[in-house]
This record gives sequence, structure tokens and C-alpha cells, in this order.
Amino acid sequence: MNTNKISWQDRYHAPEVYCIKCEIIDKPGKLGEVVSAIGKAGVNIDTLDTIEVSKTHKVRNIRVFCKNKQQLSDTLSNINALDGVKVLDTIDEVVEIHNRGPIKTVSRVNINSITDLRMIYTPGVASICQKIEADPKTAWPLTGICDRVAIVTNGTAVLGLGDIGVLPSLPVMEGKAAIFAEFANISAVPVLIDTKDTDTLIDTVIRTAGSYGAIQLEDIAAPECFEIEKRLQDALDIPVMHDDQHGTATVALAALIGALKRTGRKPETTTVLILGAGAAGVAITKILLTYGIKDIVVYDSFGPIYRGRTEKMNQIKNELAEITNPNNVRLSLAEGFAGRDVFIGVSRPKTVTAEMVKSMAKDPIVFPMSNPVGEIDSLEALNAGAAIVADGRMLNNAQAYPGLFRGALDAHATDITPAMQLACAYKLAEKAIEPLLLPDMLDRGIHQEIADAVAETWRKEQQK
Amino acid sequence: MNTNKISWQDRYHAPEVYCIKCEIIDKPGKLGEVVSAIGKAGVNIDTLDTIEVSKTHKVRNIRVFCKNKQQLSDTLSNINALDGVKVLDTIDEVVEIHNRGPIKTVSRVNINSITDLRMIYTPGVASICQKIEADPKTAWPLTGICDRVAIVTNGTAVLGLGDIGVLPSLPVMEGKAAIFAEFANISAVPVLIDTKDTDTLIDTVIRTAGSYGAIQLEDIAAPECFEIEKRLQDALDIPVMHDDQHGTATVALAALIGALKRTGRKPETTTVLILGAGAAGVAITKILLTYGIKDIVVYDSFGPIYRGRTEKMNQIKNELAEITNPNNVRLSLAEGFAGRDVFIGVSRPKTVTAEMVKSMAKDPIVFPMSNPVGEIDSLEALNAGAAIVADGRMLNNAQAYPGLFRGALDAHATDITPAMQLACAYKLAEKAIEPLLLPDMLDRGIHQEIADAVAETWRKEQQK
Repeated sequence: MNTNKISWQDRYHAPEVYCIKCEIIDKPGKLGEVVSAIGKAGVNIDTLDTIEVSKTHKVRNIRVFCKNKQQLSDTLSNINALDGVKVLDTIDEVVEIHNRGPIKTVSRVNINSITDLRMIYTPGVASICQKIEADPKTAWPLTGICDRVAIVTNGTAVLGLGDIGVLPSLPVMEGKAAIFAEFANISAVPVLIDTKDTDTLIDTVIRTAGSYGAIQLEDIAAPECFEIEKRLQDALDIPVMHDDQHGTATVALAALIGALKRTGRKPETTTVLILGAGAAGVAITKILLTYGIKDIVVYDSFGPIYRGRTEKMNQIKNELAEITNPNNVRLSLAEGFAGRDVFIGVSRPKTVTAEMVKSMAKDPIVFPMSNPVGEIDSLEALNAGAAIVADGRMLNNAQAYPGLFRGALDAHATDITPAMQLACAYKLAEKAIEPLLLPDMLDRGIHQEIADAVAETWRKEQQK
Repeated sequence: MNTNKISWQDRYHAPEVYCIKCEIIDKPGKLGEVVSAIGKAGVNIDTLDTIEVSKTHKVRNIRVFCKNKQQLSDTLSNINALDGVKVLDTIDEVVEIHNRGPIKTVSRVNINSITDLRMIYTPGVASICQKIEADPKTAWPLTGICDRVAIVTNGTAVLGLGDIGVLPSLPVMEGKAAIFAEFANISAVPVLIDTKDTDTLIDTVIRTAGSYGAIQLEDIAAPECFEIEKRLQDALDIPVMHDDQHGTATVALAALIGALKRTGRKPETTTVLILGAGAAGVAITKILLTYGIKDIVVYDSFGPIYRGRTEKMNQIKNELAEITNPNNVRLSLAEGFAGRDVFIGVSRPKTVTAEMVKSMAKDPIVFPMSNPVGEIDSLEALNAGAAIVADGRMLNNAQAYPGLFRGALDAHATDITPAMQLACAYKLAEKAIEPLLLPDMLDRGIHQEIADAVAETWRKEQQK
């Protein structure tokens, strides 16, 4: 069903998408000249359509991926320099798709009669209110709570952009909500909470949580995100999951399961180096331990985390020191790579060198997941001998979170447990399409299979 | 387009809706017996469908309006007592329509390729975040804010049910959201704020208002609602409107404009008695003054509000004493009715007698709007000589609020001003279908005409 396969090397690092509408004289070889002119600017073509045909000309829409505005402008110059070719219009397709936001609320019932109105609203609705007043549990079937998730952010760690504030983060929340709707029939609501104070954020969520069946925390900076998630999960009887932690960790584990299998490794003897002790790094560490990896060393910008380290520690790093680094390694980052089987980076772009990868064990697995650019370029890592490389754009948490939340809602779960996240990772690994490490995320059926596995896991856990 | 016309006397007071599925032997007169059996229980039939036909029987779905469960059970007994007739199933249609809630979120764009995903979410979305970071004003076109309204409640004054709390109020908010979606293409979000503290509620709304283009306050008790609305409107640069006040007032004025015309009255010489000094009473008083009515006396449960009264007063009632009751009337409620042209009740059921109506001016106008039962039964008021009667179910604020908010959003207004409410009332009055005082509320075109008039009014006000 998906004919638009992933080709990360030329497209994942070109985030801008434009539609160039151009009039091309109808002569053999002319379209080839246009395509070459685009290629000369280093720009990749996604699709090419014919939208008008006259006796002498054709009008084409050419959708291209650009790294930046300069690339677009080079492309347009190259095209306009050709004889018989004219650019008629250029549309920024990303702006187009976000125009008025990608989500909307609709009525699930047509309101075509006064009776419909009387049932949906007054006076009929009063009987539903009274049922819920008499037994609050009936709100689950009798309202949209069972399908509604709040996407809560304070805008302090948005994508790779940092602390840009709540309003600029809204497009991310709306994009996540569109994905929730398309892949999991979940009605997600962007909830912007304009505060950096942990207590205020927690109080606000608790006070307004009543109309949601689950809460997804998103783009909240570490280390506050750990306390916020824990305190909210303790206070509320619905699942609260920080996607930057557990969505990312679940997808990383899913990819790792496949990568270990393909390189003939067993979890208990695999050695892992994780660079980054923020939201994602901590969650990846914990899920890998749960999965059965024994030897993980976590590095932050200060060096390895080990028992006895006193500089730049905090509560969560102290915890990591206890549960990782069995040999209490104190090597520098460059030294630490030597002989390791797996590198997972969730830190900052360009922090890992080819030499580091070369020093790893045979057939190393390299996941440079930092955004928007990885710790090492994927091609560079492959050239340095990596057997399997996957970066942050290939390991997209949107593979995991729709099914995780759908499953939790379907089971009316009160938490999204590590076991549920494992179930999701196993399903993703099972359904991966070679040579990729993950399934086609456009396949709606897979999200439902994940949801079923997640719900089933919750139900089994409850029986214990 | 609407063939399901209003017939308030038998249906507005029967809020329960059931579908009775029954198997009826195919003999002449048998269906008549069934219909008679239903009528004998005092129950009104809405629709009747044939869903199965065999050689000997037909299966019918009969949709009925009941006042309560007893009426339904009487109906079922009556039907089952007939020879050759059997009730197969009974469905509570109100429960059915609220099952999983009447609203859902959908993606406005199909996500059918990796490119779609890359534009809606990472990495493409980052460029939209950066545009908004650079210029927050761009959030209006580049997100769903321009179509999104928060429906905020603390559940303290829900319908006629009172302070039932936030969770039981959710079906009302979802019903309102479904109406917003159907009639105004507005994406409304139920926002339950679990607090009775005014400051906390205001702080919570301000802190989370960033993703909305307007705020509708709903079912918040008086007098707190006045302060909450005012302080929020002052603090935020988007419209904040308490629907129980202004939606209700706008619809009441719309109906009154038609009623005055039909009884040959002019606003400046019309005398009005308003019973109820809560959210609706105060707002109706103010909009009638804005419209040009000079002589209004407002009664609360303690008596008339006049200058010099000291008992049971508060800030808003002191203000009412200043701007109403030009002759400083201190008569009892029963005495106060004498000679008045218009009665508008927004208080409690059964507080007005036929004698009171009889004492009014010739061809009096009576709007007993309290819910779920009016201050006086509509038929009783007609029998007592009222020329025009309309109760709370006929004067539904859902006639006004979709167009008011759509217009405010379309104009990117920062407030919903009295002039905008007047524009809405005039449009409703203009489009009324005789003998009703208001238009067919299922007519989508009318909501859009209201929106246009409201937006135009805002733009004109800005030019002054």
C-alpha cells in the first residue's frame, strides 16, 4: 500500500517540501533537462504530475525536498535558466498542510432533526448527566473519554528546537493529534500549559484531567519531565506517558530487537553505550534493562555515569549509576566505544566520530537518534563499518504511540506499564519489513495489532 | 428541509426518547391498535419505520417520546397486551447517541505517504514552529486556533440540575461541541476545570488558553460567573462569552423583537418584568436596555430590585438597581405583574400563576424560560390570555452561539460585544418562520448568515 518508501540519505535531512509548478515546452528531452536542473541544486524529487496539456506546452507540478530556502532558490534559478521552461508558482507544502491546523472536531452523529438535537443536547442530555452523577463509572461508555487523549506540553523541549514556548509548539501537538486520529481513532486534544513551574503544571493537569482517558506528555524538558510524569501517574487513575521517553524508547528497542537478531547477538551478552541522559536516554536505558540487556554504560556531556561520580549528578542519574555500568567504567567517550556492540545516541548532533565507530566490536549497531541531525551521519557510520544504522527519523515514535494509547484505552488501563511497552516493541519488531527495522507505519492494521497486544498485556498483568 | 417541526406541548416536556422494536401480525387495523396503545400511555410517536417484512408479520421500529421510565413501561405493557404483537427490543436512543460521546477529532488531511507524515509531523513541522516563534501572530493561520473554541465549565450550574460537578456535566459540553461542529465548523473542546474557587478557575483558563481562538463559559453558577467572565475577558485577547448569559439573552431578545412587532409594540414604551437575577436574568436585562427597552423591573426570590434595597443585594444587583426600575417600584411579584407588557422568567419552575398573567396588559408576551419546566405552563399562560408564549425549550441558546462564535472567529475579534449580540438577535428575528419567533435552527445557512452579520459588526466597531 505504501509506494513512497523510505530513502533516508537524501530526504530525511531535507525537511522542506515545495511544489514547483512550471510550464515546459513540449520537446523531447525537455523534461529531462528540468529534472537535471533540479538535481544539480542537490534537490530530490518526490513526485511529478502533469496538470495541463496544450498543443505546445505542458504544465507540471514537481514536488521536491529541500534542505533550506537557498536550495529552493538555486533550484528555481536553474529551472528558469532553461529555454522554453518557466516557473509559474511555488507552494510551500508544509505551510499548506498546516493551514488552519491539520485536525478538526466533527459530530459523530448527523443532526438532521429536532429530535437529534433534543437527544444530543437539552433536554435529553440531562438523563445522561444524571446517570453519570449517580455512577461516575458510566462516564466511560457515555462520553468521549474512552477515545480522548490530552497531549500536554509546556513547550520547554520542542523537537530539536529547545525551549521555544507553548504557542510555537502547537503545530507539533496538532501533528501528533492528526496521527492519533488517522492511525488509532483517538481524539487527541493539544493542551498548552504556559508554565515552567513543575507544581503548577501538575496541578493544572490534575484539575483538568476529567475529560480524558489518557494523557500524553510531550516536549517537556528533562529532568522536570521525570517528576512530572511520576507525580501525575500517581495522582491520576488514567495512563500518563511522556512520549519523548517511552515512545522513543519503545521504538529504539523494537529496532534493536531486529538488529540483534540480524547480527546474531543475544541481549544478555550484548554491550551497549548510550549517549545522552535526558528524557529519551533514561527511558531507553530502562527498557533495554527490562528487555534483558545486562551491560549498558550511559554517558552524558560530562562523561560516563558511574557509582561514585559526584559532578553534575541528579536524582535520576544517581539511579542510573546504580542500575547500569556493571563494571563501573570510567573511560572517556572515545575510549568507551572500544569493543561495544551497540551505540544509541540521544544527545546532540555531530558528537560521534568515525574513529569511535571503527573502534566498536565487529558488525556494530549504530543508532544516532539526535534531532534534527544525528550524532554521526548515517553514511559516515556505515563507511566506518557499522553493520546496521538507523537514525532519529527512521526510528519515529509515531510508530509506537498510537497503538500504545489505543491499547491502553481499549483495556481501560490505568497506566502504560513497561510490559505494555515491551509488547509494543515486540510487535513492531515482528512486523518489520526487511531491510528496515520497523514496519510500514502507514499500515493501519499494524497500529491495531499493536493496540491489541498492548491491551492483552494489561489484562494479563491484572490477572496476576 | 426540516420536516420535523416543533410541537412543544407534547414533546418538549418529554425528554426521553426510545426506539421500540416490535413484531406485528400483518392484519388490517393491527398497526392502528399499536399506535392507539402507545397513545393511551400518553406517549407521542416521533417516527415509525418498517425494518423487516415476512409473509405473516412486519417488524417496526417506533420512536417515541416519554416523560419518564414509567410512561415507557406503561407503553410496553399496553403493546404486549395486544394479540399478535410482541415487543422485541427497546433502545434508549439518548444513551445510544451519547455512546462514546457525540464528537470526535479527525485529521483534515489524509496521511497516505511518508511525505504527508514528514510534513504534518517531524521533520517538516519544525519550520512551522519556527515561523510562529519568530512571529506569534502567524499561529492564527498556521494552526487550528482560528477554528478552535474551549467550552469551559466547573459544573456548578448544569442545565436545571444544579451543582452536579464537572464529570456529570461533560455530556452537555460534548453536545454543545457537536452543535458547534455541525452548524459552524468550529472545533470545540470540552474543558472541565474541577474547582469552585474563582481565582483558581481563572488562573487555569489563562494558563491553558493558548490553543484556542475563543472561550465559551458554560454552566458556571452566578454570581461567580460574572466576575469570571469579566476577568478572563480583560486578561485574554480572545473572546470570552458565558453562554448561559449572552447566548440566552440574545435568543430572548430575538424572540422579543418578533413578539413586539406582532403585538404592535415599540421597545421604548414597552414595560418588562424579569423574574430571576442570575446569569441569564442579568444578561437579558442588559441586552434589552441596549435594544431600547426603558422600563424593566427585575425580581429575584426576595422581591423587586430597587435603589435603596439593602437585603440580599450584591455587586451585580446594586448595578441592576441603578440601571433598571425607573419608577423604583417596590411591589410584590403578584402586584408587579399588573399592567406589564412582557414577562420573562429565568428563575424556577411553577413560580408564576394564571392570575398574574391575567393581570398583565392586553396581549401580553410571556416567556417562562426556566428549565426543565417553565415558571408557568405554556398552555396555562395562553389560556390566561397571553398573546405570545415561548418557553425555555423553544428559546434555545443553540440558535445563537454557533453563529456568534463563528462570526467572532472569522473577524479575529478579541471580544463578543453587545453590538455583535444585537446583530445576532436582529438576524434571528429577521429569519423567523411564522408562527415561531425564531428560524429553523437546522438550517445551516442561517448560522452562517448570523456569523457574517456578527463579523461585519465587529469590523464596523473597529473602524470607529
